Amino acid sequence: MNIKVLDTTLRDGEQTPGVSLTSLEKLRIATKLDEIGVEYIEAGSAITSEGERASIKEITSQGFGAEILSFSRPLTVDIDYCLDCDVDGVNLVVPTSELHIHDKLNISCDELIDLSNDAVDYCKDHGLVVELSAEDASRSNVDFLRKVYSNAIDHGADRICVCDTVGILTPDSSLDLFSKLNDFSVPIACHCHNDFGLAVANTLAALKGGASEIHTTINGIGERAGNTSFEECVVSINRLLPQFSTNVKIDQIYDISKLVARSTGVYIQPNKAIVGENAFAHESGIHSDGVIKNSATYEAITPELVGRKRKFIIGKHMGTHGLDNRLKELGLNVDDIQLKQICDDIKELADKGKTVTDVDLQVIADNVLQINHEDRIKLDELTIVSGNKVMPTASVKITVDDVEILNAGVGLGPVDAAINALKSVDAFKDIDLIEYHVDSITGGTDAFIDVIIKLQKEDKVVSARGTEADIINASVKAYIAGVNRLLRD
Amino acid sequence: MNIKVLDTTLRDGEQTPGVSLTSLEKLRIATKLDEIGVEYIEAGSAITSEGERASIKEITSQGFGAEILSFSRPLTVDIDYCLDCDVDGVNLVVPTSELHIHDKLNISCDELIDLSNDAVDYCKDHGLVVELSAEDASRSNVDFLRKVYSNAIDHGADRICVCDTVGILTPDSSLDLFSKLNDFSVPIACHCHNDFGLAVANTLAALKGGASEIHTTINGIGERAGNTSFEECVVSINRLLPQFSTNVKIDQIYDISKLVARSTGVYIQPNKAIVGENAFAHESGIHSDGVIKNSATYEAITPELVGRKRKFIIGKHMGTHGLDNRLKELGLNVDDIQLKQICDDIKELADKGKTVTDVDLQVIADNVLQINHEDRIKLDELTIVSGNKVMPTASVKITVDDVEILNAGVGLGPVDAAINALKSVDAFKDIDLIEYHVDSITGGTDAFIDVIIKLQKEDKVVSARGTEADIINASVKAYIAGVNRLLRD
Repeated sequence: MNIKVLDTTLRDGEQTPGVSLTSLEKLRIATKLDEIGVEYIEAGSAITSEGERASIKEITSQGFGAEILSFSRPLTVDIDYCLDCDVDGVNLVVPTSELHIHDKLNISCDELIDLSNDAVDYCKDHGLVVELSAEDASRSNVDFLRKVYSNAIDHGADRICVCDTVGILTPDSSLDLFSKLNDFSVPIACHCHNDFGLAVANTLAALKGGASEIHTTINGIGERAGNTSFEECVVSINRLLPQFSTNVKIDQIYDISKLVARSTGVYIQPNKAIVGENAFAHESGIHSDGVIKNSATYEAITPELVGRKRKFIIGKHMGTHGLDNRLKELGLNVDDIQLKQICDDIKELADKGKTVTDVDLQVIADNVLQINHEDRIKLDELTIVSGNKVMPTASVKITVDDVEILNAGVGLGPVDAAINALKSVDAFKDIDLIEYHVDSITGGTDAFIDVIIKLQKEDKVVSARGTEADIINASVKAYIAGVNRLLRD
Repeated sequence: MNIKVLDTTLRDGEQTPGVSLTSLEKLRIATKLDEIGVEYIEAGSAITSEGERASIKEITSQGFGAEILSFSRPLTVDIDYCLDCDVDGVNLVVPTSELHIHDKLNISCDELIDLSNDAVDYCKDHGLVVELSAEDASRSNVDFLRKVYSNAIDHGADRICVCDTVGILTPDSSLDLFSKLNDFSVPIACHCHNDFGLAVANTLAALKGGASEIHTTINGIGERAGNTSFEECVVSINRLLPQFSTNVKIDQIYDISKLVARSTGVYIQPNKAIVGENAFAHESGIHSDGVIKNSATYEAITPELVGRKRKFIIGKHMGTHGLDNRLKELGLNVDDIQLKQICDDIKELADKGKTVTDVDLQVIADNVLQINHEDRIKLDELTIVSGNKVMPTASVKITVDDVEILNAGVGLGPVDAAINALKSVDAFKDIDLIEYHVDSITGGTDAFIDVIIKLQKEDKVVSARGTEADIINASVKAYIAGVNRLLRD
């Protein structure tokens, strides 16, 4: 059975506390959602603000294949704003639990039904598709819930949706609830929240119970613990539930995940399924060894399936097989004794609590192999002047292949000035800084700062670290170490 | 039924790519695990390194109530290292799928059984508790799996465990598998991985199938997408599965989560269930309004249950009820027209894609209320000199209550120097910088840097932002804005 996807990254997802997207960011995400094969895009909530309406209008004017919806309460004022934005339809959200009807809205159940029916009528009179979402459905009386749905359908609702608003379903109770609601004449959707970490499992159980549409957000963002994660749910359907399918192009999942993370600023934890930085990374010896022999030993799906690549990480749990593989990638062939020594030295560094970068590995390997790789670039002196009325200025004295070079640069900030002072030197040409990461500092500004950067030259990427209490020195140190590593090849 | 917890944060959790814990960090986490009521602590893998063994020994010497285990392959060399560390028991991991036995170990099934039996014998001869974990059990032939388990039990294994090594179970298949394995004479445990986001749901299904022990990691860290998250699983059992219980003191869950995040450097995404920064945060108008009237409308559990507090966030989805509540907390009483104007102004800021801090709110409210809060502290001039051979030095010219003050400071880095130059001024006394956050910069060093800081004075905490291309200016700006806000009260 083919399952339809309503993605609400731009509405429920944007309701993530602290998140606001610009119109351009919203348009980019909507464009990607349309491309990836989502059937319904909830583009926002038209009542929210002037800027929100401008964003929704921008999206509805694109002529996407996907149906564009706005969130709406069952109120004329909300629906009018939706109509202003020229949406195809509304996600008409009607609370159905006693708690929501009485404590929040302070109306009677009969009044609620009237409100809902009137809103559906108003929408249909104005040509809108109506998906009627029962808010807090999972804590509602099932008979009343059925009454709300059947009234809405009689008034013309095109689809209905069960919202587990506070995420209290389990796969068992989700299956049970949907089994009691799957006999209506219109499609029924499932909208889950992740307060107990069960949103994806509950959504999959709903499919078994008869749902034919799922509500998701990219990276599972949303209010509180967020919503059903698009990537986990869609890939689970694809790989684990042979009786169901979606129209999503899953090889574009990583792209859209990164786009949403970048736009919202809601970072993805490294151990997030499918899209987390570590989802296809292997460090431990047993795992790396297994994956090298047959990737299926420790991977449920290949990273390529979702648009990603496998990574082997150097660290204390690493075994000699994974290390040997990484060294070969760096062009180093070692014998067993050397391999063992490199492995031990890395574990010693890691036992101190350090992440091991490519440059660390190279330095350790060079020592063991007694390779004296003279660094081509050496920093002699770096001086920075900056302030609120001073143009950030850096001077550097470096030697490149033993030739002393003096240079200066200005920049938007001191790190930028320092990098600019280096960058205009010939030896640094064609090298791009593709990632610059500073860990947050807790407790004070005197903590050591670990700057980890990634540099790229053509198709080669290396990581390097600088650790200093001075962020500028740390950045320059990491930059020069990385450049030296790239220039060696 | 009471469920036992084996926590493997210090073994499978530490295998998170890039993570290495120091002995002290491991000891702190083990201490907290023991306090919180975990029955079994897997403290590491003794074979890994000298440092790892020192950490495990440190933990076994504490006399904790919890049983301390080490991971071990079914090899004498591994078990001997475990014995060296004086552990109570071993998590003896024996692969049982054809893929692992043939492709990884390259032995026959009979050889595997011999290996397993010999290892169990050796452990029991040396007085170790044995939990025999069948690796890749979820992709193993069930008859063979039963054979491995019954052999191990005959040889003295105390507990057995089913590992879903690549996370391919669903709640249905987990229930099914455990139902076929729940008739052994020893307790059976469930060890799940989160590759499809289903680890918690699969673990809960295993309980229904007869498991009486769960394997977890704090924050769900671990190889790839990680393991069953301790907090999600334990709180789900507590709140959603009345037939089961654990001995975990769940009001300490947030504490241990933060300890592990800080120690490992594996940050928790804000939308993580139970422990994420936003798990009990509310921004949208409808939600805040509901929570103020009755918190159960939009919260499945109270934050206090897991040692947390509720937060209302200011932003574009905020309604007037939540905003009014926040303004009252700041000591501001406003009428309806003022409230509407403040709300509109905040939404305008948020429509530009900005996080709204306390200081932003105050500035907007002051404008609307035409309160002319003259800032007590104004920055006139800031100059920084830094470099690799220069002591980071800052000079500041500020006015405090219109009195000009010149001051200078040195520090470990330029931000530290600047803050020190300010801090020694009387007006800044008793104010602590409790959080300093810089977003990572992608693509270059010329990007604008958003520094968000939190400052504390006695029991008051405010957030403030500085956005500049110069990290020092941004930090100082945020710092002075936050201090001005604190000094106003």
